[in-house]
Amino acid sequence: METRACVLHAQEDVRIENHPVREIGPQDVLVRVGAGGLCGSDIHYYWDGGIGSIRVNQPIILGHEFAGTVEAVGEQVSKLRPGERVAVNPSHPCGQCKFCLAGEQQHCLEMQFLGSAMRNPHTHGGFRDFIVVNQTQCEPVGDAVSLGEAACTEPLAVGVHAVVRAGSLVGKRVLVTGAGPIGALLIGAARHAGAREIVATDLSAAPLAAALAMGASSVINAAQEPEKLQRDYSADKGYFDVAFECTGVGAVLKSVFPVVRPRGSIVQVGVSGAADIPVNALVGKEIALIGAHRFHQEYAVAAQLIRERKIDVRPVISTTLPMERIAEALVLAKDRSTQMKVQLSFA
Amino acid sequence: METRACVLHAQEDVRIENHPVREIGPQDVLVRVGAGGLCGSDIHYYWDGGIGSIRVNQPIILGHEFAGTVEAVGEQVSKLRPGERVAVNPSHPCGQCKFCLAGEQQHCLEMQFLGSAMRNPHTHGGFRDFIVVNQTQCEPVGDAVSLGEAACTEPLAVGVHAVVRAGSLVGKRVLVTGAGPIGALLIGAARHAGAREIVATDLSAAPLAAALAMGASSVINAAQEPEKLQRDYSADKGYFDVAFECTGVGAVLKSVFPVVRPRGSIVQVGVSGAADIPVNALVGKEIALIGAHRFHQEYAVAAQLIRERKIDVRPVISTTLPMERIAEALVLAKDRSTQMKVQLSFA
Amino acid sequence: METRACVLHAQEDVRIENHPVREIGPQDVLVRVGAGGLCGSDIHYYWDGGIGSIRVNQPIILGHEFAGTVEAVGEQVSKLRPGERVAVNPSHPCGQCKFCLAGEQQHCLEMQFLGSAMRNPHTHGGFRDFIVVNQTQCEPVGDAVSLGEAACTEPLAVGVHAVVRAGSLVGKRVLVTGAGPIGALLIGAARHAGAREIVATDLSAAPLAAALAMGASSVINAAQEPEKLQRDYSADKGYFDVAFECTGVGAVLKSVFPVVRPRGSIVQVGVSGAADIPVNALVGKEIALIGAHRFHQEYAVAAQLIRERKIDVRPVISTTLPMERIAEALVLAKDRSTQMKVQLSFA
Amino acid sequence: METRACVLHAQEDVRIENHPVREIGPQDVLVRVGAGGLCGSDIHYYWDGGIGSIRVNQPIILGHEFAGTVEAVGEQVSKLRPGERVAVNPSHPCGQCKFCLAGEQQHCLEMQFLGSAMRNPHTHGGFRDFIVVNQTQCEPVGDAVSLGEAACTEPLAVGVHAVVRAGSLVGKRVLVTGAGPIGALLIGAARHAGAREIVATDLSAAPLAAALAMGASSVINAAQEPEKLQRDYSADKGYFDVAFECTGVGAVLKSVFPVVRPRGSIVQVGVSGAADIPVNALVGKEIALIGAHRFHQEYAVAAQLIRERKIDVRPVISTTLPMERIAEALVLAKDRSTQMKVQLSFA
Repeated sequence: METRACVLHAQEDVRIENHPVREIGPQDVLVRVGAGGLCGSDIHYYWDGGIGSIRVNQPIILGHEFAGTVEAVGEQVSKLRPGERVAVNPSHPCGQCKFCLAGEQQHCLEMQFLGSAMRNPHTHGGFRDFIVVNQTQCEPVGDAVSLGEAACTEPLAVGVHAVVRAGSLVGKRVLVTGAGPIGALLIGAARHAGAREIVATDLSAAPLAAALAMGASSVINAAQEPEKLQRDYSADKGYFDVAFECTGVGAVLKSVFPVVRPRGSIVQVGVSGAADIPVNALVGKEIALIGAHRFHQEYAVAAQLIRERKIDVRPVISTTLPMERIAEALVLAKDRSTQMKVQLSFA
Repeated sequence: METRACVLHAQEDVRIENHPVREIGPQDVLVRVGAGGLCGSDIHYYWDGGIGSIRVNQPIILGHEFAGTVEAVGEQVSKLRPGERVAVNPSHPCGQCKFCLAGEQQHCLEMQFLGSAMRNPHTHGGFRDFIVVNQTQCEPVGDAVSLGEAACTEPLAVGVHAVVRAGSLVGKRVLVTGAGPIGALLIGAARHAGAREIVATDLSAAPLAAALAMGASSVINAAQEPEKLQRDYSADKGYFDVAFECTGVGAVLKSVFPVVRPRGSIVQVGVSGAADIPVNALVGKEIALIGAHRFHQEYAVAAQLIRERKIDVRPVISTTLPMERIAEALVLAKDRSTQMKVQLSFA
Repeated sequence: METRACVLHAQEDVRIENHPVREIGPQDVLVRVGAGGLCGSDIHYYWDGGIGSIRVNQPIILGHEFAGTVEAVGEQVSKLRPGERVAVNPSHPCGQCKFCLAGEQQHCLEMQFLGSAMRNPHTHGGFRDFIVVNQTQCEPVGDAVSLGEAACTEPLAVGVHAVVRAGSLVGKRVLVTGAGPIGALLIGAARHAGAREIVATDLSAAPLAAALAMGASSVINAAQEPEKLQRDYSADKGYFDVAFECTGVGAVLKSVFPVVRPRGSIVQVGVSGAADIPVNALVGKEIALIGAHRFHQEYAVAAQLIRERKIDVRPVISTTLPMERIAEALVLAKDRSTQMKVQLSFA
Repeated sequence: METRACVLHAQEDVRIENHPVREIGPQDVLVRVGAGGLCGSDIHYYWDGGIGSIRVNQPIILGHEFAGTVEAVGEQVSKLRPGERVAVNPSHPCGQCKFCLAGEQQHCLEMQFLGSAMRNPHTHGGFRDFIVVNQTQCEPVGDAVSLGEAACTEPLAVGVHAVVRAGSLVGKRVLVTGAGPIGALLIGAARHAGAREIVATDLSAAPLAAALAMGASSVINAAQEPEKLQRDYSADKGYFDVAFECTGVGAVLKSVFPVVRPRGSIVQVGVSGAADIPVNALVGKEIALIGAHRFHQEYAVAAQLIRERKIDVRPVISTTLPMERIAEALVLAKDRSTQMKVQLSFA
């Protein structure tokens, strides 16, 4: 069996090609993909040929945010049926290394993450009409939401995981810097987790509108009001209990320290090579700067939140194009002034 | 009543002068100081005229690490008697602000910290023959240890507080970067807290010898073997569960990330203006970088550890000079190749 | 100035009497009470003459759940204005004992709790037309909700506090045993905190209906289906991550152990003298049985949740009677088959 | 190959019999057993025919605390060599169930625990001259300690695990009720973890002497001074931060509540069928009653503590008899007035 697939060959070279579909093993599921979202890594792979030290050095099928419909199941699969709609978890840890046996699967030493160029050979992703995955990677999403919403399970899981890293948010005042797709979905997760107040910042109008739609209490356009955050929130050693830093921009991270209260936390979600941090503030205020990476059990949690629409992710989806137009989608996705999540639709 | 005191007038201008001793209030204690240790802030005040944004802009009596003998007590003081030997806690929080009422006294909005130039007027310190303090600032140290040892209560409390910030160390592998007085005392605290293994790094022989004397399992001379830390401890995403960064040097902090395991902690104890950190490692390995600032209830804990010599701090004290020779002591204290803690003795 | 008040003289002897109103100090606020809720302790004081070892041995004005309108403010009160509607926090810790200075005010050694017979002389409560309280006890509730809803701030704060004791509920499966007013409000708090699923149990229809209205995913009538909880939720060592035990009934607490997973928590909210627990299950499954007592900062959090109707407490209020009919209200409040929270209205 | 073994056939019927030794698989190790300790479950199996609902209903080789010398290794074993002395971990989780993949191996759904009658067929134990185990079950203990000491690794691991459950003990005041072998070894672990003060209680002189030898600050003979604990430690709502309850006796557990401070913890280590607890104290003081069950990674930690004699377990070993005299040893082990750990020696 063959499938159409979006294959990245090199920087700015993505092609629609046929690709073999592997056979369905006894624990496997054949999924007909319906929708897939472009993520930052897809965009960097295409425009930059990689991200940081990870380089695309061989053809790779893109895509790790996707959902579809079960087409067929292996003989030992009992919990999924053909016709069932599922979000597909791109994370496939080995289950045997010391991190897996410590419940820290996102740090698996032999992780297979769909659509990732981290390992060699690269692990193919889900931007194709058909894919075979292990049954444990399929989370039912029901029939009440679109497959586009279901394809937001992965980035929502990232947000839920970051929220879990922060501990209980009940009664807490929260700052979210950067309200792109991850930041906006994280706002939904923080609101759902009982945050008392959520202030979001960004440089563009579209993300800020999405932030409000996802549950932010108020927003700051840092391009228009660069002084507002410090002016309003730095008194008495800082206002926020928890900040989620989603930009990965050093200057933004630095600006967070004065507005987080002593003993507060900054959960770092956005990635960058390096950043300059004010060590005297970190020490003097005993701030905890905590990394949040991907997710594990949060994927199932996110799928249920979307299935029951306890978090409505639709404000985050800005444009959907058919998969053949992926190159166009990759152009669009760079435009933060108008776009949030750009998705592809499949046959 | 008057007392001799070590008064810093300006950069490189310290004088022995007479100074009035305030009257003993009903809750107060008159202490005859016996020993005092020079700390980094004393050294920076003297050589640099301040530290970071804190500037010495008026005469200040130096010293926040000291111990002595109770000379007289106020009428409402029942737990202390003349002749009793005490370590004096330089920290005096207001007891009324929101941080005090949250049990986070080290972040008090109206903190009076003896010997600190942070507030204006500055708060005078303890390098003098006599001082009056509140009874709550006095911790008995018994008669079995020297007042020099007792004067290590403050820096040991810093180490104990940092250890408490890290959570339980039982079964944990620990790295300590920087084995000056704070690092070396912290090693004693980490050993006492049940750390499974403690590796210490420094650039000089004297601190590394003190590290071993305080309980390090092994040491690395990073000047002689700059590659050793990475070579031996970075496999499988990193070896250490917890690192205590005591240098405040950006390059050292950066070098810690590869050798701390996923989900591990870096407790930042050393202070600096800024440091460049690898955000991709912080995020990808979900490391928590946690500030540790001073201490609160740990002062009493440290006093007891010294009183019962459960932690023997003597390897950390390198030289003791009479208080009149403070200028000479401040020169000595800069020499990390031979000196650890330089102390003054009082009449 | 005088006020009408509901004064309990002895078991089953409550009278409407005039009582002096103390003068308004500089930090004080005069509140015209609008609504007050009957709590378990009011009911026990009236019907049993006390609760456990706490005995009503002198006349006491009942009531610790109440809200009203600011009538006048002391000269140093700047944040509250006449006409403003407030929920009144009955908890008034000393602010000076070791528990207050550890941020554990609910354990204050000198706690003054309005309407409580724990201390002698007893502390008068809020079932009266006018009361003077400290400004720190007043939480604004805005104009969009009724004073009856505002009077639910105290029991909702109990629920929020119990939820905070459990840590993050994101992605967690939750059991609530006992869906009376506290249990039902706690369900609202758990839903607000992001619980993945909430199963509630009770013996009566009215509480179970309230449980569903407050956000339970499903309910079990333990009178009609006594086996259902064990049958459905005990496989693989237990289903629930967290249980909130709100009945205080030993047999109910015992029944929770088989359905909580290893390493799960049981937060005990309901009070009783003693209960028989299965130590082998507690140990073998490493369950944590955690007490939750009153609240501290959660009062302000609960007031805001009600003010913004993020938690709609109306399903919990079953009957409101004028304060003159308090004896009748105390009869009604005992009838769990039809009643949840019975409230009084004031002039 | 055959080995002599201590086989329990029924209540009070233990025999020395020959038993086959299974072949050495590629990951296996053949151990010549040197010493084995009698544990409470061995004693209950022998005298009562089981413990609680666990019944010995078929012949079982006793023993889960033992150590010996590597005799031969499988072809894929690289880290162990013949002649090496090891403590053998009786815990062998499946590595595949949801608890193993959450890092909670002690709750494994398919646990094979050596010498345990919990499963059918029972899992044979280590009281025999030779045994084949998986290489992951062997922890090197070096040549500086006796095999009797090494055989204390298992009960010490129980103590270390309980200490880890309590969180950091630095600066904490600790109560240990019951100073039998588990309690006494736990005292060693708590001392090693930096507890500020350890008070131990028991009814007999031998355990109290062992408690002091293992590091208790003071002891209370509850038979001679039944009022002392309450009299000395219940003021101001209770003195201890953490209590470790090692007796499993309901009346003892009950007596702990008044002497634990608000927000303190009781770690339950001793097992019993049921116990009556004061729910009003648990709730009113917000105590956490936390179960501690066996160990996982703490086995390796305990082995290292014994190997380096950082905890000297010798005060806990009271008598050693050759394995042929196991029946005699089982009589001795019941006598708490003179005995702590009774051990067997093997050829």
